[in-house]
Amino acid sequence: MKKTVRHRVPGTSPGAYDIAPVRAVQHAHVEVSDYTATTLTAQSSDIELLDSPQPTSGVRWIHVAGTPSMEVLDKLRKLYGLDPLALEDVVNLGQRPKFNEYQTMLFVTLLIPDHAEAGRFEQLSVFANARTVISFHDGTPGLLDPIRKRLASDSSRMRRNDGCYLLYALIDLGIDHLFPVIDGIGGEISALEAEVLERPRRNALARLHEIRNRLLVYRRTAWATREILSDLFRHLDSSDEDRTYLRPYLQDCHDHIVSVIDLLETHREVATSLVEVYLSLVSNRLNETMRVLTLIATLFIPPTFIVGVYGMNFDRDAGPWSMPELGWPFGYVGVMAFIGVMMVGMLIYFRIKRWI
Amino acid sequence: MKKTVRHRVPGTSPGAYDIAPVRAVQHAHVEVSDYTATTLTAQSSDIELLDSPQPTSGVRWIHVAGTPSMEVLDKLRKLYGLDPLALEDVVNLGQRPKFNEYQTMLFVTLLIPDHAEAGRFEQLSVFANARTVISFHDGTPGLLDPIRKRLASDSSRMRRNDGCYLLYALIDLGIDHLFPVIDGIGGEISALEAEVLERPRRNALARLHEIRNRLLVYRRTAWATREILSDLFRHLDSSDEDRTYLRPYLQDCHDHIVSVIDLLETHREVATSLVEVYLSLVSNRLNETMRVLTLIATLFIPPTFIVGVYGMNFDRDAGPWSMPELGWPFGYVGVMAFIGVMMVGMLIYFRIKRWI
Amino acid sequence: MKKTVRHRVPGTSPGAYDIAPVRAVQHAHVEVSDYTATTLTAQSSDIELLDSPQPTSGVRWIHVAGTPSMEVLDKLRKLYGLDPLALEDVVNLGQRPKFNEYQTMLFVTLLIPDHAEAGRFEQLSVFANARTVISFHDGTPGLLDPIRKRLASDSSRMRRNDGCYLLYALIDLGIDHLFPVIDGIGGEISALEAEVLERPRRNALARLHEIRNRLLVYRRTAWATREILSDLFRHLDSSDEDRTYLRPYLQDCHDHIVSVIDLLETHREVATSLVEVYLSLVSNRLNETMRVLTLIATLFIPPTFIVGVYGMNFDRDAGPWSMPELGWPFGYVGVMAFIGVMMVGMLIYFRIKRWI
Amino acid sequence: MKKTVRHRVPGTSPGAYDIAPVRAVQHAHVEVSDYTATTLTAQSSDIELLDSPQPTSGVRWIHVAGTPSMEVLDKLRKLYGLDPLALEDVVNLGQRPKFNEYQTMLFVTLLIPDHAEAGRFEQLSVFANARTVISFHDGTPGLLDPIRKRLASDSSRMRRNDGCYLLYALIDLGIDHLFPVIDGIGGEISALEAEVLERPRRNALARLHEIRNRLLVYRRTAWATREILSDLFRHLDSSDEDRTYLRPYLQDCHDHIVSVIDLLETHREVATSLVEVYLSLVSNRLNETMRVLTLIATLFIPPTFIVGVYGMNFDRDAGPWSMPELGWPFGYVGVMAFIGVMMVGMLIYFRIKRWI
Amino acid sequence: MKKTVRHRVPGTSPGAYDIAPVRAVQHAHVEVSDYTATTLTAQSSDIELLDSPQPTSGVRWIHVAGTPSMEVLDKLRKLYGLDPLALEDVVNLGQRPKFNEYQTMLFVTLLIPDHAEAGRFEQLSVFANARTVISFHDGTPGLLDPIRKRLASDSSRMRRNDGCYLLYALIDLGIDHLFPVIDGIGGEISALEAEVLERPRRNALARLHEIRNRLLVYRRTAWATREILSDLFRHLDSSDEDRTYLRPYLQDCHDHIVSVIDLLETHREVATSLVEVYLSLVSNRLNETMRVLTLIATLFIPPTFIVGVYGMNFDRDAGPWSMPELGWPFGYVGVMAFIGVMMVGMLIYFRIKRWI
Repeated sequence: MKKTVRHRVPGTSPGAYDIAPVRAVQHAHVEVSDYTATTLTAQSSDIELLDSPQPTSGVRWIHVAGTPSMEVLDKLRKLYGLDPLALEDVVNLGQRPKFNEYQTMLFVTLLIPDHAEAGRFEQLSVFANARTVISFHDGTPGLLDPIRKRLASDSSRMRRNDGCYLLYALIDLGIDHLFPVIDGIGGEISALEAEVLERPRRNALARLHEIRNRLLVYRRTAWATREILSDLFRHLDSSDEDRTYLRPYLQDCHDHIVSVIDLLETHREVATSLVEVYLSLVSNRLNETMRVLTLIATLFIPPTFIVGVYGMNFDRDAGPWSMPELGWPFGYVGVMAFIGVMMVGMLIYFRIKRWI
Repeated sequence: MKKTVRHRVPGTSPGAYDIAPVRAVQHAHVEVSDYTATTLTAQSSDIELLDSPQPTSGVRWIHVAGTPSMEVLDKLRKLYGLDPLALEDVVNLGQRPKFNEYQTMLFVTLLIPDHAEAGRFEQLSVFANARTVISFHDGTPGLLDPIRKRLASDSSRMRRNDGCYLLYALIDLGIDHLFPVIDGIGGEISALEAEVLERPRRNALARLHEIRNRLLVYRRTAWATREILSDLFRHLDSSDEDRTYLRPYLQDCHDHIVSVIDLLETHREVATSLVEVYLSLVSNRLNETMRVLTLIATLFIPPTFIVGVYGMNFDRDAGPWSMPELGWPFGYVGVMAFIGVMMVGMLIYFRIKRWI
Repeated sequence: MKKTVRHRVPGTSPGAYDIAPVRAVQHAHVEVSDYTATTLTAQSSDIELLDSPQPTSGVRWIHVAGTPSMEVLDKLRKLYGLDPLALEDVVNLGQRPKFNEYQTMLFVTLLIPDHAEAGRFEQLSVFANARTVISFHDGTPGLLDPIRKRLASDSSRMRRNDGCYLLYALIDLGIDHLFPVIDGIGGEISALEAEVLERPRRNALARLHEIRNRLLVYRRTAWATREILSDLFRHLDSSDEDRTYLRPYLQDCHDHIVSVIDLLETHREVATSLVEVYLSLVSNRLNETMRVLTLIATLFIPPTFIVGVYGMNFDRDAGPWSMPELGWPFGYVGVMAFIGVMMVGMLIYFRIKRWI
Repeated sequence: MKKTVRHRVPGTSPGAYDIAPVRAVQHAHVEVSDYTATTLTAQSSDIELLDSPQPTSGVRWIHVAGTPSMEVLDKLRKLYGLDPLALEDVVNLGQRPKFNEYQTMLFVTLLIPDHAEAGRFEQLSVFANARTVISFHDGTPGLLDPIRKRLASDSSRMRRNDGCYLLYALIDLGIDHLFPVIDGIGGEISALEAEVLERPRRNALARLHEIRNRLLVYRRTAWATREILSDLFRHLDSSDEDRTYLRPYLQDCHDHIVSVIDLLETHREVATSLVEVYLSLVSNRLNETMRVLTLIATLFIPPTFIVGVYGMNFDRDAGPWSMPELGWPFGYVGVMAFIGVMMVGMLIYFRIKRWI
Repeated sequence: MKKTVRHRVPGTSPGAYDIAPVRAVQHAHVEVSDYTATTLTAQSSDIELLDSPQPTSGVRWIHVAGTPSMEVLDKLRKLYGLDPLALEDVVNLGQRPKFNEYQTMLFVTLLIPDHAEAGRFEQLSVFANARTVISFHDGTPGLLDPIRKRLASDSSRMRRNDGCYLLYALIDLGIDHLFPVIDGIGGEISALEAEVLERPRRNALARLHEIRNRLLVYRRTAWATREILSDLFRHLDSSDEDRTYLRPYLQDCHDHIVSVIDLLETHREVATSLVEVYLSLVSNRLNETMRVLTLIATLFIPPTFIVGVYGMNFDRDAGPWSMPELGWPFGYVGVMAFIGVMMVGMLIYFRIKRWI
C-alpha cells in the first residue's frame, strides 16, 4: 500500500518544476523523430538536436527517456511554450492520470503498470498538437518499442496522420498494459478461491487483503484514465480543427478502458464475497471442533463421576447404608453395564440430533 | 470466474483483425438471404454468393456462422466498407456488448448466454443499415432459427420493414435468452434458501458464492445491453432517416432489459441476505453445542470433585479430624443426597435461565 | 421469492398477444360507462356493448374484469387502434409497472398489492386519452368500487374532467393501496425489533430475511411507479393538449409515492441494522454461556486434581517420603482448607475481572 | 420506529380535507398581524378577525395555532383561494417536508423536531405570497415566539421586506431547530463510543440501533428540507417578481441544511463503525475467556489422569507387573515431581506462545 | 469525534455577527499590504491603518489575525460593504468550507488542518475582488508566511496579478496542507496493517475506529473544498471580468483536491478491509485455542474415566464378577497399554484430520 507522491511544500509557488533536489546527476536521453507519410528521420541522444529546425510538414516527436535535466526542460519550455504547471507534473512523479488543455498543446499524464512490482506505476507524460509530440518517460526501457516499430513501417496509419494520432497510440498502449496486470489479479483470485474452498491456509485473508488493495490502486487509475478519454472527446467536439477521424479510435480506447473497469469491479466483488466465504468456513471449522469436544466431554464426564462414586472410601462397616453396593456380587458388572447403556444412549441421541 | 478475453499484444496497431493465430483451419458457413415484403431467396454455404449483385430493393442479410476466414472478412470489408476496428471486435471474442455507429453501418456486439455452460456467453456481432445486415455468430447452431422462421412467413413484420428491424429482432432475441437463465438462477437461490433455512449442507456458502459470481457476470452484460439500447435511441433521434416506426419496438426491448436488471438486482440482494442468514444459523448452532457442553460440565464436574474428596486415602486412625465422615453410618447416603440436591438445583437454575 | 412472469419463447414476434395457451375458457366481464358532467350511463356484461356508438361528448370508460377473451381484445384493438405490443403486456401478467405513449392513447400498467398474499401483485392496465379510457383488471373484485362510487356522484371532479383525470384516479388508487401494506411491514419489523431485543426466537432471522425480500419486491414496484409519474409529467409538458389542470393532482400522487419509497428505504435500513443486533446478541449469549463453563471448570478442575493426589494408593510403608501426609492428624483438614482458600481466591479474582 | 401517518382510505377523492373524524371539539387559536416597515398591529383569538379588510400596503400574517376547525379552513380557502390538496396536507399530520407552488401562493410543509420526544416531529405548514402569509402549527406553544419578537422590533429586516421573507424566516427557524437535536445525538454517540471502548454494557448495541433509527428519521427530513430549498431557488429563478434580495438568505439556509446533512452522515458512519468495534470487542472477550479455560484444562487434566492411574486398586500381590511403583520408596515423590515439571513446562510453552 | 460548532439560538436574526458572548478581550492583529507589480508596502498592528486611502492601482490585502473585535468588523463592513451573513460565518468557527458570491466580493471559507491536533481544523475566511482581499485567520501564527514571502519577491506572479490570484494562492495553500495530514494517516494505516497481520494488540480496532473517524472528517472537508473550486469555475465562466488567466491555476488546485479525495477514499477502503482482516484473525486465534483445548480434553478425558474404573472399591470377595481384573498379574500393564494405544490412535486420527 506504499505510494510515493512527491508533494510540494505548502505555499510554494505553482509551476515550480525546478525545485526537486534530486536532480544533481541526470541521464536523460533525448530522441527526435521527424516523420511524414513518406519519410522518417530518427536521431537520438543529443540535446542540440532540439535546436534543429522542424521540417515544414509532418510531425516531430521528441521523446525524453529518464529523468530530464533542467536544461532540457527549459529549452523545451521556450521552444514550444510548455506551461510550467504541466512541467511540474512531468517531474513530480506519482501524479494521477490527467488531461489538460493548454493554449498550444494538449497535455496527458498516463500511469502504466510497472510489471516488475505489483501495484506500482510508471509515469508517461505527453504534450501533443498536430505538428509536435513531446513525451517523457522515466522507467522500463523498451516500453515504447512497439510504437517505434509501427512508426518505422511506411504503411502504418500513424505515419499518415497528425500528432494527435500518436497521442492516441500512446494512450492506447497505456490501456493495453492494464489488461495483463488485471488478468494476473484475476488468476490470483481464482487460485485463492480454489484454495479457500478447498483448505484455506492461514494467510489467505492477508493475501486477499493485499489483492484488494492492489485492485483499489488500479481502479483509481482506470477511472482517471476513463476521465481522460471523456475529456478528449469533449475536446474533439469543441475543437476548431477537424479531427473526427480520431473518434472511432478513441471510442475503441474508451471501450477498452470500460472493459478494464468492468473486470476490476467484478474482481472486487468476487474478492469481497470470498472474504465472507472464508470467514464462514472458519466458523464452520470452529463449530466442528467444538462438536468433537462436546461429544467427548458429554460421553465421558458423567461416567467418570459414577466411577468416582464407587471409588469413595466410606467404611462399609459403619452401617447398612454405607455403600452396600460394593459388596454385591454383581455390583461391578451392573455399574459397568449401566455406564455402557448410558453411553450408547447418548450416541443414539447425538445421531438423532445429527451431531455425528 | 473464468473469462477468456483474447487481448491484443500492447502496442499493436488498432483494427488488426488479421492477427489471431488460431485461424489455420476454418469452417465458416455463409448464408445470404434477400427479402422484400413479397419475396425471399435464401442461399447458403458458398463464399462466391457474396459477389452476387444485391437486388435493387429489399434487404440482404448475410449471416456468417462459425469462425470467419480472413478471405470472408476481407471480402465483406471491401464490399460494404466495414471498419477494421469493428472487424477486430468480431474476431476477438469475449467483448463487452457494445454499440458503434460507423459511417455506413451500425455495429452491435451482443452476448447471448450459453445454455450449455453457466456464466458463459456466445458472441453475436451485427452490422446493419437499411439495405444490408451482416451478422457473425460462432456458437450453438440453431440460435437464429426462430428469426429465420419468422422471415419465412410472408405476413411477418420483418419482411415489410428495413434492415434495422432485423437488427432489432436480433437484439430482442438476445435479451429474451437472458430470461430463462435468470429464472434458473432464481430457482437455484430459492432452493438454497429453503435448504439454508431447513438444514444447510456444508457447501451451501460455496454454492452461494458461485451463484453471486454468475449474477455479477450477467449483470455486467445486462447493463451493457441496456446501454446499447440507450445508444440506439439516441441514434434514432439524431438520425436523418426516419425510423420512428422502430421506437415502440426498441421501447419494448428496453422494458425487457430493465426487467432483467431488476430481477438480477433482486437476486443479488436476496443472495447477500441469505449469506447473513447462513452465518447466523452457523452461530446459532455453535451456541447450541456450547450450551450442551456447559450443561454437562456444570452438572458433573462439581460432583466429581466431591466424590474425589471421599476417595482420598487419609488415615482415619491419624486423629479425630482425619476424614471422620467415612465412619458415619449415613455418610454415604448423605453425600449422595447432597449431590442429588445440587444437581436438581442446577437443573432448576438452568431452566429459569432458559438454557434448557 | 416466487415471481411468475410468463416469458415469451425467445425469438417470437413482438406484439403476439394471442399466443397464451391458457385461454380456452374465459369469464371476462365488460362494463361500459359513458359520462359527462351531468349524465352517467353504466352498462355491463355484454360484448356487443362495445359496438354501441360513443356519445359525441363526454368520456367512455370500458372496464374488462377477468381474463379477456381474444374476441374482446381484437374488437378493442380495431375500434380504438390499440397497439399489439401493449395488448401483449395486458395479457402477460407479471409485468413491471410502466408507461408508454402510443399514437392515440397513453398506456399505463400498474401493480396493486394483493392483500390476500404478501409480496404478490394484481395487474391493472389502463389505456387512456381525453375521450376514452379502457382498463383491464384480473383480480380481487371490488377493487375499483371507490372509483365507481365517486363517478356516480354528480358533484365529483371526475365527472367534470376528461379521461386523463380517470387515469390519474386509477394511478392514485394503486399508490394508496401500497400504504397499508407497507404499514403492515413496519408493524412486523417493530414486533420483531421488540422480540429480538427482548428474547429472540430461533426463526427471527428467517423472518427478517423474508421481510427483506418482500421489501425488495415492493421497492421495485414503488420505484417503477415513480418513473411512471415522471414520464407522465414529461408527457404533460410536451403534449399539445392543455392538461395543466392535472399537474397538482399528479404532483400529489408523486408526493405520495415518494413517501412510500422513503418508508420502504427506512424499513430496509432498520431491518439491516436489526440483523446486526441479532447477530451480536447471539454472540453475547455465547459469551455468557462460555463464561459459566469457564467459571465452573476453573473452580473445580484444580481441586479435583488435588483430591486425586490423595486418592493415590502409594504404599505408606515403602519409605518416609511415600505419602506421609496421609498419616498427619490434620492432613485432611489442611487439604480441605487449602482447597477452600483456593476456590475463594479464584472467586475474588473473577469478581475483580468482572466475570461474575 | 413508530410513525403515525394518517392515510386516506384508498380511492377517496383528492383534496378531501374535511374527512378527518377526530375534529368534534377544536381549540384552534387564530392570530392576525398586519405589518409594514413602520406599523404593526397584532390581534388574536377571534375568527371574525379574518374578515377585517387587509390594509392596502404591508403584509398580513395569519397564524392558526392548534387543530384548525372546518370553519376556519373553509373561510381561509375562500378568502385566499387555498388549494384543497394543500389543506388536506395541513390537516393530515405526518407529511414529508415539501414545497408546492400554487397559482396564488407558495405552500411549504416543514417538520420541526419535537424536543420532548426523540425522533418525532411537529408540522408547520405555511402558505405565502408577497402580501399574505398563513401558517398552521399544532404543537409546542411558543415555537414562533422568536419570530414574533423580531417582528415586534421596528428595525427588523422582516418588517421591511415582503411576505416571502417571513416564509424564509420560518424555514430558517425549522432548520435551526435541527442542530441541537443532532448535537444531542452526537453526544450520545460519543458517550457510547467511550463506553464501548472502555467496558460495554449489555444494551450498548440496542441503544446504537435506536440511535441509528433516529438518525434515519432525521436524515429523511433533512434531505426533504434540502429539496424544499432547491425548489425555492428554482422558483426564484423562474418567478416574474423580483425577489433576488432573498437569494443570500436562502443560500445561508441551504448551507445550514447541508451542514446538518453532513453531520448526520458522519454520525451514521461513526455509528456503523462502532457496531463493528463492539462486535469485535465481544469476540475478543470470548477469546480471553476461552484462553483461560484452555489454560486451566490443559494444565490440570493430564495430571488428573496421572494421579488417577495411581489411585487404581490393582492387587500388588497379583504379580511383579501389577503396580510395583506403589511400593517404591520414592514413587510418590517421583510422580509429584514429574507432574510439577510437566506443569512448569506447559506454562513455559504457553508463555512462548504468548497465551499468558 | 468532537466537533465544536457554535450554533445560533433558533430563531435569531440572520447575519447577527455581534452576538458571540466570548468577545470581551480581543487580540486581533491587523496587517495591511498594498502591492503592485513593482511596489509593496506592508504595515501592521493598528486599526487606523484601515482608514488610510487605498492607492489608485494595485491590490490591498488586509489580514486580520486572531479573534477580530466588533470595531474591526464594523469598520470593514462599512468600508467594503461586506455582507453581515458572511461576517457571521467569519466569527462562528466550525463552518463547512464554502463559497459565496456577494455583490462586490467573493467570499470563501477554508478549513486548514490543525497539525497540532489530529482531526481539527483552523478556519481561514477570505473576501476577495480584483482590488481588495480581506482574510481572517484565528490559529497557528505563521500559516501565511509562505504567501508573504512570495509576495515580497518582485518577480512573483502574485505581484503581477489581481486580488483573485491571491485568493487562489490562499486556497492552494489550504489544499497543500491536507497532503501531509493524509500521508500521516496513510502511514498510521500501514503501520496498523503490519501490526494486525503480524500480532495485533488489543486496541488495534479502537485505533482503526479512530482513524476512520478522522478520515470521515477530512473527507467531508475535501469534498466541500472541491465544491468551492467547482463554484469558482462556474463563477469564472459567468463573470463579466476576464479572468481566464486563472483557469489553469484553479485546474491545478482542482487536480490536487481530487488527488486528496482519491487518497482518502483509498485509505477508507483499506481501513475497512483491515477491520475484516482483524476480525478474521481474532476468529482464527479462537479456533486455534479451541483446537488445543479439544485435543487435550479428547486425549485425556477417556483415559481418566478408565483409570477411574479401576479405582472403584468393589469388594473382590463378593463374587467372581466383582472386579476380577484387579487380581490378574498383567491387569495393570494391560490397562496402561490399552490407554497408550488409544492415545496414539487419537493422535494419528487428529493428524489425519490435520488438527495438529
